[in-house]
This record gives sequence, structure tokens and C-alpha cells, in this order.
Amino acid sequence: MKKLQLLAATLLMASAVEAQQAIFERHDTRSPEFNGDGTVTLRIKAPEAKKVGIIGDCIENGRAEMTQQDGIWTYTTKVLPAELYSYRFYVDGVETQDAGNIERSRDVRSFMSTFIISKEEGDCGWLYQNHNVEHGDVSHVWYDSPTLGMKRRMSIYTPPGYDKGKAYPVLYLLHGAGGDEEAWLTLGRTAQIMDNLIALGKAKPMIVVTPNGNASDDAAKTLSNSPLKGEKTLPLREGRGGSFEESFPDIMKYVKEHYKIKKGPDNTAVCGLSMGGGHTFRISMQNAGTFGYMGLFSAAVRLEWNTKKSLEQQFNDNQEAAAQMKALFAAKPHLYWIAIGKDDFLFQQNVELRQYLDKMQYPYEYHESEGGHIWRNWRIYLSMFAQRLF
Amino acid sequence: MKKLQLLAATLLMASAVEAQQAIFERHDTRSPEFNGDGTVTLRIKAPEAKKVGIIGDCIENGRAEMTQQDGIWTYTTKVLPAELYSYRFYVDGVETQDAGNIERSRDVRSFMSTFIISKEEGDCGWLYQNHNVEHGDVSHVWYDSPTLGMKRRMSIYTPPGYDKGKAYPVLYLLHGAGGDEEAWLTLGRTAQIMDNLIALGKAKPMIVVTPNGNASDDAAKTLSNSPLKGEKTLPLREGRGGSFEESFPDIMKYVKEHYKIKKGPDNTAVCGLSMGGGHTFRISMQNAGTFGYMGLFSAAVRLEWNTKKSLEQQFNDNQEAAAQMKALFAAKPHLYWIAIGKDDFLFQQNVELRQYLDKMQYPYEYHESEGGHIWRNWRIYLSMFAQRLF
Repeated sequence: MKKLQLLAATLLMASAVEAQQAIFERHDTRSPEFNGDGTVTLRIKAPEAKKVGIIGDCIENGRAEMTQQDGIWTYTTKVLPAELYSYRFYVDGVETQDAGNIERSRDVRSFMSTFIISKEEGDCGWLYQNHNVEHGDVSHVWYDSPTLGMKRRMSIYTPPGYDKGKAYPVLYLLHGAGGDEEAWLTLGRTAQIMDNLIALGKAKPMIVVTPNGNASDDAAKTLSNSPLKGEKTLPLREGRGGSFEESFPDIMKYVKEHYKIKKGPDNTAVCGLSMGGGHTFRISMQNAGTFGYMGLFSAAVRLEWNTKKSLEQQFNDNQEAAAQMKALFAAKPHLYWIAIGKDDFLFQQNVELRQYLDKMQYPYEYHESEGGHIWRNWRIYLSMFAQRLF
Repeated sequence: MKKLQLLAATLLMASAVEAQQAIFERHDTRSPEFNGDGTVTLRIKAPEAKKVGIIGDCIENGRAEMTQQDGIWTYTTKVLPAELYSYRFYVDGVETQDAGNIERSRDVRSFMSTFIISKEEGDCGWLYQNHNVEHGDVSHVWYDSPTLGMKRRMSIYTPPGYDKGKAYPVLYLLHGAGGDEEAWLTLGRTAQIMDNLIALGKAKPMIVVTPNGNASDDAAKTLSNSPLKGEKTLPLREGRGGSFEESFPDIMKYVKEHYKIKKGPDNTAVCGLSMGGGHTFRISMQNAGTFGYMGLFSAAVRLEWNTKKSLEQQFNDNQEAAAQMKALFAAKPHLYWIAIGKDDFLFQQNVELRQYLDKMQYPYEYHESEGGHIWRNWRIYLSMFAQRLF
């Protein structure tokens, strides 16, 4: 009885704390509202605004004007298929996120409000959610990089059951330009995708390592030793271009020394998006025989930049690179997987990569999707690639 | 040479990726700008706005109107002492954060832009930054809570050198109402505070465990199995009030089984803020002799809520609780530390707690600071408390 009193006291006390703390803000508008018919209504209160726009991948044609009643501006989506969606308001030209929605994501310096739609178990929205399945853990660890001369932060997912002592294969998962060691975990939903694919029996339990591909930073810009100080533009990868690839053995050394991993190419994979696809392209060349599985998602694949030469010509002019590529495929990897959207601005680079691989008779698999250079595609590519591993 | 070409290609490639990706937004306004004289200028572009306000703890009296020139609204702070500051704009009444600043924090559903001022090594701003010191790792792990009938997520900081195999003492660090297992790590800057205090030799290396105190959630609301769906108000701790304290042994069991820890009250501490201070108050009573160190930061300390009785009277009416408190102090803990700000709405509750402890001749230490129920105080209290441990 006394115990029950204590319990009740706690509960009530909490309400009082709530009432008095300024942080417990209430909002006049319900947003997002998930309607019974599969549409979603988004709202913002702005009684003095002359015009409110909304942009996002849940908006028809990407942008729309909202309609106003009693100071509340509203937009209702079409029926949305399963996906993680993002959106943002513009109130008389000033951007803002949805104050009613605590889910937000940052991509480089772009903040969006987000929500997930799932229709049934196993659809892509479902894969991105937290479910009552066995969960892997995520650690943010600091490793020593003698190559870059600093301690650097990376994120490591260990699968459910890892604590029981078994060794697991490893996937190295690389982010794009402007991303960092948190990008695949936040916008990329990596922990949820892995948990759910493993729970469904569609992916083997594995360790997933997501380092920071910006060689001049020790950690995400939000935490870095070289923090942003109100710059108008983001200083991306200043200096040391390419050093990340050179420093990659430092990462693999840390993982080998600190985690129970299965070794050899049968148990080692690397993939990445955009710049991280370029990293994958070069790291796999520079470490022929190390990776049994490679995934290039919307990858930046060139050997030289300031040239109109085709990738084939670039390889012809760079015999060291051509020899590395030859050694990579001589090691008979299980999978060299190229995925890109039809509208991706890097599409042509990937056409040239496939032309070169075809010409050299290097075996690969190709997946072409709709859409462009977007996280929506990269989450799906990861979900597909992970199911092919180990 | 070929290698150098590869490096150069990577660097240049990155710029092209940057130019073409929509996510690489540029901003017209530089904000925040750190002026040479110790002031900070905050800006937002809003040419069509009639009025722009700014609120935050870096603003004189907490709020101000901004001044406009050429569509850019500006506010310059006074010279700011070392601290982590937060602010937010209101454009014709609509809240928004600083688009020029990638550092943002969420407290419950309140988003603010943030920046840190540090004047010299060891000041509180310095403690909150990432420096080139040895770093501890942070893991988000899932533990089984049979008491609550679910797997739950918590965050665990392990100190630099933990991987070398030594055992360490443990601090359990509890968040307030509306927080979650990420609150102490984000707004609380716990990893940075611990790294830096340890590097300065001011705190002993320790493991810091920050669980989720909302007993009905499995994880932070942004990730939870019961996600927010556009609710106008946050459903806080619905049901199961007080169960968190009951479930606390599940947490300690996981930590003992998965981490190398030094055992016994000399090596075990618990502290928390607000609701987490209330949790600390009750968990330490319910587990007399377990904790050698207890810290109550702006704590909610009542046995019953719906009463005008003093805490002393509440203890008199609840002999089970009084006996627990007696057992707690009979175990001769090293430190029972109470900290609160003069303007805190829970100040009176802490007066009554001290009156009761005085009357019973239970030894404690008391720290009274300026200010109210704010993170600024809690970060400082953690910094002070951590230096007293073990």
C-alpha cells in the first residue's frame, strides 16, 4: 500500500513538473495527422503570413502552396506508399520545420521534418521503424588513425546476440559528401534495417561499421574539433582529399582488434553512397582480395576529374589503377554490385563504369531504380545489398 | 604520381558532387558570427517579415526584438561568459531555428539552435566541447527488463582505456520528465564532460549509464515502439508511473553482466535531474547500501503529491519510506548531494528535504546556484558531482 502510494506520487509529481517547465510547450496544431484513408495532413499556425509553401518528397511534384483557415495553413498529401518522408515549410519565404513533429533529420545543413508510413510487415517503411524484435547495439567509438594523425570517431552496429561470444562478418558502410559517421544511422536507418532484416531471416547477422569519410575531421561537424562557426557554406573535406582511402587500414585494424569478427573476403564487405561509393570503388581496388562483396550506390566513379576522357580511357592512361582493378576481379569476389537511379546526376559515370567492366569481362550486377541522388534510394539499396551478403 | 592523381581526382570530384546535390544548400546570412569582442551576432533573412523576435539564454532578459536592414534581421549579444547557449527566432510569431547553424538541440519538443562559448581550458564551455584528449566510447544498448516486460534502450559511456581490460566504477545518470536515454548525452554533454574532466585529472575514469526513465517507452520517442503521431501535447509517462524505480535492478543486472565494473557502494553512484532526481531519491531509498554516492539535481522530492503536508509529515505518515531512508544513511554513504537553483520551482521541495535530513541528522551536502530548472545548471551540477566520485 505504501509502495502504491509512492508509485502514485511519482506519477502525479510528473504532471506538476510538466505543467511548470517551460520546455513542456503545447502546440495549437496537430501535425502530422495520419488520416484513416492513407493520406497525411500537415499543418502550421501562421496567422500573419501572406503565403506558406511546403516542400518535400511527400508533396506532389515536390512543392505546393498551403491553404489557410483561421490562421492555420494546411496541406493534405495523396495516399502515400510505405516510405520515410521528409518535408519543410516556407512561411513568407522563411524556412521552418513542423513544430508539432519531434522527428527531424539533418542532411548536411538541411533540416527536414520526417515521418514514416508502413502498410505491412516487411515493406520499406516497416524496415525503417523500431519493432519489438531482437535489437543490435550501436556504439560510437574513437579509433587511432596514424595515417591521418588523429583519433577519429566511427559508429559500429553489432547484431543481436553479439554479446554471446560468436564471431560475425563485417560490412563497412560509407556515407556521402557532407555526411558523417552518424548519417547512415539517422537518415540511413541502418540499425533498424539490420535489426528487421535479421529478424525476418532475410539478412545474416553482421557487424556494420560506419566511419567518417571526411579525412580532415575527427568527428561529425556537430561535435568536431573544427566546429562550424556560422559559415555561409559548409567547408567540405577541406584538404587531404583521398586520404580517407589511404587511412582505411587503420579502421580495419581497430575493428579486428576490438571486435569478434570472421576474417577473409567471404566475411568482409564494403559499400557506400555517392562519395562513399567512390571510396568503395577505390578502397576495393587498393585492397584487392580483401572484400568479397562490394556495393556502389549512386557512386562517384572517376579516376581523374578534370577531363572529358571516358572512364575506360582513364583506366588506359592509368595502368596502376587498371592493374588494381584486374587484381580485384582476379580474387573472384562474390559480388560487385552497382545501383543507381535513372535521374541521378552521376548516372553517366556509372554507365561508363559498366562499359569498362563489360569490356574487361569483369563480372558485376546492376540495379537501376527510379529517382535520383536521394536517401530514399540509398536506404533501399542498403536493404537489398545486405540481403546478398555472407 | 598515379596515386596523387587519384587523390586529386577524389578531391575535385567531391566539389562537383557538392555543386549538384540539392542538399548542399547555401545561405545568404552568416549566423552565428563570433565577433572579436566576445559578443555573438545572430541573423535571419526574412525580407517580408513585419517583426522578428529572438528568445534564448544568450539574449538579455531572455527575449528581444531584432532589427532589420536589407531584409536581414540581426541581434548582437552582450559579451558572453563561457557556456552552451541556445536561441530561437520568431518570424511574425512563427518559430524557427537558425538556418545558418547546424547545431540544434531538442528538449522534449522544443528545438533550439545552440553554440558554445569557451574562454579558457577548464571553463564550463570548454568542458562541453570535443577536444584532442583521450575519448571514451558511447554505446546505445538494448537490455531486457522483465519488470517492465520489454527490451529497453539505454546509453553507456565507457572511459578512455576501458578496452584495456580494467574494471571501473559506475555512475547511473537519470534524465528528467520528457527526456530520454539521449538527453544527458546531447543537451547534457556527458561524454564531453567526462572525457575532459578525466583528461584534466579532475574526475576518475568511470562508466556512466544513462537509461530511459519513461517506464512505458522502450526507447526515445523519436525511435520508440509508440512513436508520436502528431499529438498536440506529448504523452509523458502514460501509465506505469513509478515502475522505472522498480525496474532499476534490471538495469544494474545488465551492466554487471556486460561490463567490467568495480562493485559495492564505494564504486556505485546514482544521480539525476528533476524527475530523475526523484528517481534517485526513491531508488537510493529502495536500495539502501547499494550507492555510496547520490546526487539530486533540481529534484522532485515528495512521497505523496496531492497533499499540503510537509515532506517531514509525509515521512511520518509513511513508516516504510522512513525506514528505507534510515537504512540508506545507516549504510554510511560517502555523499548525499543536493543541488538546486534559487529560482527553481522545485526549490521549496528541496528546502523540506533538507529540513527532514537535518531533523534526522542524516548527513548531506548542499549546493545552491543561481537560476532555475535549466540544463545549464544540470551540466554544471554533473561536472561538480563527477569530481566528488570514487
